[in-house]
Amino acid sequence: MNERFNKGMETMRQYVSEEELQQMVSNDALAHIAPDLRKLIVEYAYGDIYSRGELDAKERALVVISTVVTQGAAPQTKTHIKRGLYAGLTEAQIVEAILQLAPYIGFPRVQNALTLASEVFAAQQQNV
Amino acid sequence: MNERFNKGMETMRQYVSEEELQQMVSNDALAHIAPDLRKLIVEYAYGDIYSRGELDAKERALVVISTVVTQGAAPQTKTHIKRGLYAGLTEAQIVEAILQLAPYIGFPRVQNALTLASEVFAAQQQNV
Amino acid sequence: MNERFNKGMETMRQYVSEEELQQMVSNDALAHIAPDLRKLIVEYAYGDIYSRGELDAKERALVVISTVVTQGAAPQTKTHIKRGLYAGLTEAQIVEAILQLAPYIGFPRVQNALTLASEVFAAQQQNV
Amino acid sequence: MNERFNKGMETMRQYVSEEELQQMVSNDALAHIAPDLRKLIVEYAYGDIYSRGELDAKERALVVISTVVTQGAAPQTKTHIKRGLYAGLTEAQIVEAILQLAPYIGFPRVQNALTLASEVFAAQQQNV
Amino acid sequence: MNERFNKGMETMRQYVSEEELQQMVSNDALAHIAPDLRKLIVEYAYGDIYSRGELDAKERALVVISTVVTQGAAPQTKTHIKRGLYAGLTEAQIVEAILQLAPYIGFPRVQNALTLASEVFAAQQQNV
Amino acid sequence: MNERFNKGMETMRQYVSEEELQQMVSNDALAHIAPDLRKLIVEYAYGDIYSRGELDAKERALVVISTVVTQGAAPQTKTHIKRGLYAGLTEAQIVEAILQLAPYIGFPRVQNALTLASEVFAAQQQNV
Repeated sequence: MNERFNKGMETMRQYVSEEELQQMVSNDALAHIAPDLRKLIVEYAYGDIYSRGELDAKERALVVISTVVTQGAAPQTKTHIKRGLYAGLTEAQIVEAILQLAPYIGFPRVQNALTLASEVFAAQQQNV
Repeated sequence: MNERFNKGMETMRQYVSEEELQQMVSNDALAHIAPDLRKLIVEYAYGDIYSRGELDAKERALVVISTVVTQGAAPQTKTHIKRGLYAGLTEAQIVEAILQLAPYIGFPRVQNALTLASEVFAAQQQNV
Repeated sequence: MNERFNKGMETMRQYVSEEELQQMVSNDALAHIAPDLRKLIVEYAYGDIYSRGELDAKERALVVISTVVTQGAAPQTKTHIKRGLYAGLTEAQIVEAILQLAPYIGFPRVQNALTLASEVFAAQQQNV
Repeated sequence: MNERFNKGMETMRQYVSEEELQQMVSNDALAHIAPDLRKLIVEYAYGDIYSRGELDAKERALVVISTVVTQGAAPQTKTHIKRGLYAGLTEAQIVEAILQLAPYIGFPRVQNALTLASEVFAAQQQNV
Repeated sequence: MNERFNKGMETMRQYVSEEELQQMVSNDALAHIAPDLRKLIVEYAYGDIYSRGELDAKERALVVISTVVTQGAAPQTKTHIKRGLYAGLTEAQIVEAILQLAPYIGFPRVQNALTLASEVFAAQQQNV
Repeated sequence: MNERFNKGMETMRQYVSEEELQQMVSNDALAHIAPDLRKLIVEYAYGDIYSRGELDAKERALVVISTVVTQGAAPQTKTHIKRGLYAGLTEAQIVEAILQLAPYIGFPRVQNALTLASEVFAAQQQNV
């Protein structure tokens, strides 16, 4: 592919394992209806944005977890908690970031996010 | 006041100057209709939540900026950008956190937040 | 007009003074681009919905204030606080309803709503 | 525990049965990752906020149902409809409050909330 | 029923098959708790609004798909993708409208909507 | 600049006049804090997304107006109404698209959007 795609793939390696990365690209559930979506995410989100300076991978993961929890986006909350762990955040730091949102977004979205976090943590444990 | 209030005030000192803190408590614009609100924010948000461990003041500021930008909460975006700077984040880090939100919340809220950030940065410059 | 419109106007009299009601209908700022909007609101919102049973005017006003505050809809927050007062809610009850939202929507929207409430309360005082 | 926790538990008794209350505290699904969350909810939401005056338990339940329906928070919509019934609201009043939101939040969230309400009502029937 | 209901039913025929339309009215899952909801939707949404001029059925379907995807309303996203197809939009046009939202609402809601779209498209295929 | 930027600029010419386009690029209010933002919007939003097939400029403008109105994004609502007019939508079509949202997002955001639309229409008239 092109330079931005390669830069995006390189950046994603800070957030997902090589195995997952290959699977994500080769086995895209939406490829039959939106064949460009995966490419757009890799190039734009990871190639253009995540790859920038000033913040490290753990800080970017905190920012992204905060926004998907605030939006109540369930599948993405699980995805980005997983990526945050891979980038080096501890489970305790992720829980703490979600609790820090409580005075700003209220308990409902915080509770739902912590339920999703506990599912991700349990699944990780099983993989060990 | 009580222990939680004192702990909240102590924690707030990581995010606002002593002068601003005194002004906030003594000169509360909502005191005549909701006299308990300021106390609830100091005790609960700062005393119970911000004072917890695992994340430092700069990380908590990043999380809070991300959530208020995601919500499109204009006055709070300005407040928490100011508090983030006081806690030690650089202007470049704050801009970067807001840009990191673009693939997740879209350009409208990112643009509006960067406009507010530029106003905060300009006002800080004048105070120097 | 028709029966639903008349029922809507009748129902609105529980929330706005006769003077305001006449002004609203005769002096509609959006009439030149959307001449049917006012009619749709009177017929559907007030004629079909507000006029139903089971809840009284004060309870409906509490429900509506809660939803516009949750949405962060500023002009409507002011409008429905005014209508709630006219329907018989006290200032203290309205403040209390907004505070009750804090654990569910967080402080930003609560603070912004209380600021708008204090503006409405001040304007009412001047009219006395 | 402390005074605020006890006040919160006392206030919760207006919204949940003793049995449910004990279960909620002793059997907290999120206790292993966020052991303080339940305590924060009891102390802050119920001890500090719900326990205040000016509005009674039924009015507070109406306000809370309105906000969680507006946010589209599914698990909390079910929870607070159940608590509203326990506090003395009738099924018809809860349905009516949700319908009152239609002109303000549109049909999608109203339909989804009524579907959840019908599930809660059916489950209650079976418990009789 | 009345004139608005008939006009609403007539308008709905541009978006749903006769079979589905009859089923929707005769077999309303919410009829036991909110017997007026279906009537309100037919009369107000379809009789008053969809039936207006200036935009054709396909354009209105694009507008409605855009708003329910932006709101993250899952059941309604499926419903209105189905109605858009019935009104004459192609699968490719619907996918394209959802992708056009990406720079404005971010990838999470776009991905979730495309997943729902692929489910609707697959179900349609089976019906052929 | 690069190919995507050029493609983005070319696509934008369907939505803004040459004069406005030059002003937007040469006179970017956020350039001092986020010098890459304008470039990201041109390349990604216009170069990658708006330039795709299946929908024409007027249809894309309808989709974008619907999403920014749904989000309650005020400055962007004005911007994209202006761009929609430039792309060939009539004032009546834009008003109609906003009214079509009423059963899905409620009156508050519809009213606020129509107020912004009337400001854009009035400003256009003066430029004639």
